[in-house]
Amino acid sequence: MATAGKVIKCKAAVAWEPNKPLVIEEIEVAPPQKDEIRVKVVATGLCHTDLYHLFEGKEGFPTVLGHEGAGVVESVGPGVTEFKPGDKVIPLCASQCNECRFCKSSKTNLCEKSWSTNPCPTMAGPVTRFSCHGQPVLQFACTSTFSEYTVMNKIDLAKIHDDAQLDRVCLLACGVSTGYGAAINSAKVQPGSVCAVFGLGAVGLAAVMGCKSAGASRIIAVDINEEKFEKAKIFGATDFVNPKAHKKPISDVLIEMTDGGVDYSLECVGNVELMRSALESCVKGWGVSVIVGYTDLHDFAARPIQLIAGRTWTGSLLGGYKMKDDVPKLVLDHIAGRIKLDEFVTHTMNLEQINDAIELMKSGKCIRTIINMSK
Amino acid sequence: MATAGKVIKCKAAVAWEPNKPLVIEEIEVAPPQKDEIRVKVVATGLCHTDLYHLFEGKEGFPTVLGHEGAGVVESVGPGVTEFKPGDKVIPLCASQCNECRFCKSSKTNLCEKSWSTNPCPTMAGPVTRFSCHGQPVLQFACTSTFSEYTVMNKIDLAKIHDDAQLDRVCLLACGVSTGYGAAINSAKVQPGSVCAVFGLGAVGLAAVMGCKSAGASRIIAVDINEEKFEKAKIFGATDFVNPKAHKKPISDVLIEMTDGGVDYSLECVGNVELMRSALESCVKGWGVSVIVGYTDLHDFAARPIQLIAGRTWTGSLLGGYKMKDDVPKLVLDHIAGRIKLDEFVTHTMNLEQINDAIELMKSGKCIRTIINMSK
Repeated sequence: MATAGKVIKCKAAVAWEPNKPLVIEEIEVAPPQKDEIRVKVVATGLCHTDLYHLFEGKEGFPTVLGHEGAGVVESVGPGVTEFKPGDKVIPLCASQCNECRFCKSSKTNLCEKSWSTNPCPTMAGPVTRFSCHGQPVLQFACTSTFSEYTVMNKIDLAKIHDDAQLDRVCLLACGVSTGYGAAINSAKVQPGSVCAVFGLGAVGLAAVMGCKSAGASRIIAVDINEEKFEKAKIFGATDFVNPKAHKKPISDVLIEMTDGGVDYSLECVGNVELMRSALESCVKGWGVSVIVGYTDLHDFAARPIQLIAGRTWTGSLLGGYKMKDDVPKLVLDHIAGRIKLDEFVTHTMNLEQINDAIELMKSGKCIRTIINMSK
Repeated sequence: MATAGKVIKCKAAVAWEPNKPLVIEEIEVAPPQKDEIRVKVVATGLCHTDLYHLFEGKEGFPTVLGHEGAGVVESVGPGVTEFKPGDKVIPLCASQCNECRFCKSSKTNLCEKSWSTNPCPTMAGPVTRFSCHGQPVLQFACTSTFSEYTVMNKIDLAKIHDDAQLDRVCLLACGVSTGYGAAINSAKVQPGSVCAVFGLGAVGLAAVMGCKSAGASRIIAVDINEEKFEKAKIFGATDFVNPKAHKKPISDVLIEMTDGGVDYSLECVGNVELMRSALESCVKGWGVSVIVGYTDLHDFAARPIQLIAGRTWTGSLLGGYKMKDDVPKLVLDHIAGRIKLDEFVTHTMNLEQINDAIELMKSGKCIRTIINMSK
């Protein structure tokens, strides 16, 4: 393309400091260096993890948030043969180098090179390709999809099928894969089993869909917002429980409903008390509880007998998917109709409306808002 | 035998009240009722769980403790065809009815009929066959091996090979099976892996033996009592760490020793802080930590990222063995030399010395004391 090798000036939503509204700025995006790809972002979702980092402010600032996007390759740097301009791609917030002991193991989707804190560790030279008013701007989670253009290392980018609908498959970059894979890969839900999903945001609804896809016979959807039950039904939930409608602890309610507890529970909120309830809702002997919701501000806890009696507590990051390998397959699953994505999208906005989208997410009045970058 | 159908008067160590020395008494043991077997106890180990129940005093009193015994069938009640007088047997503190949904599942060794609190739920009629001075005496854990005779339901008794050495295989009724199976069945240690065992009592040493048997390439033995390291070496430990010899947290020490953490850790003490250390000593991505040591007085806890990063926390009761099926196989393993038992036995006493054995265990100066009932 005509822009190859040149600095691109484009719009981005810059987070200048923690816990303040984002500011739409013109930023400069440098050309990709060795092993890097510059991507024109077409659409991006907004995820709770963006808000978590914005509110907690533990990462560096200024930065451009956004890690649930999809786009098209604009140009490639030296050494890149796997991608070419025009390819549809999904930027990944988890690397897959295929060289480290984690990548070489089938047991995990972690990668030694993955981003954990800013600055992004996979950029070739200086830590960012972004600048604004002459000042470097960090790339959050190596992705930064709240920008019209971004630059990724090739180990952080997945090439997807040409038929992919970018303003839908962007959800596979994080939220939907996280919940869906937590059921399939982390809990390893078996056909005929009884599951409970705590929290019916996008991740929780995707977990419901994952339980359904794995053949669960009963999927109990748990949320204090009953408006979400209708949506959960679409994804396969069979029972609906509002903890606030019961005087008993929610674990006691589920144990009674299921004659001893569920086979699998998935905590999709990020609340340590709910993590305990999810474990305690599991049947002794073989119950598996998966921590999916992210928080790291408090300890989770339980009594030892919960585990000694045969329960297992585990967790899941991005649904256990090796993202560079697996996101393209999940895209094919969407194209083939095996994974629903339309049903997650409750609002569509443009980049100028990003702060409205943040407020909407904070209010709990949406499942996913898609930011369409070309509008 | 001549005693069949009659009340037997014999010696037993009666716990009249919590946290007091046991009293050697003459008790009366009623004949076995339907589906029951009366067993002449030949030898018994003394386990921390006996002490736990004695000290905490949550169970009913008076009672006869002891659940790590082996003996010979004296007589059988109506409906018992599987056992006959003279058979060598091991009383089991966990039932296996083979009829409940837990017994029918290959995922667990729990049984719906198993003892969890006194009185024993598997006795046919009145809750105990024991009395002393005309007063009923409860049977602890359905076993009560601190008595020359006891009565078991057939679902709580395993028939073992005639060549079994009763004053050794009694250890397979609890401690050794618990640790050995925790490594093999619960952690599912894989060949070539790196393990850490926290606590080198009988359970911990058996866990070391289980890791070795499963093919671990490196087994790190952790204890604050360095005198136990020599024993651990006999069972297969390759590295030895005394947490008190380090300023850093023990998890940091193990992470450094293993370039990122161990594949499997087993907590064999029953200390909730150590449970946390054991989890935090595991490598991210696939580390598995098993809670083996029993306590239920406090919560265990950790930060969610520990599990979200791919670690698994689970627990184990009696090593995950379906005891009635599996203890006879473990006895064969001992006869064939695949399982060491002699090496656990540091002291041998008679029933009159039971309080000395308790004091010895409390002092940490023994691994296992065998009470030889016939002496």
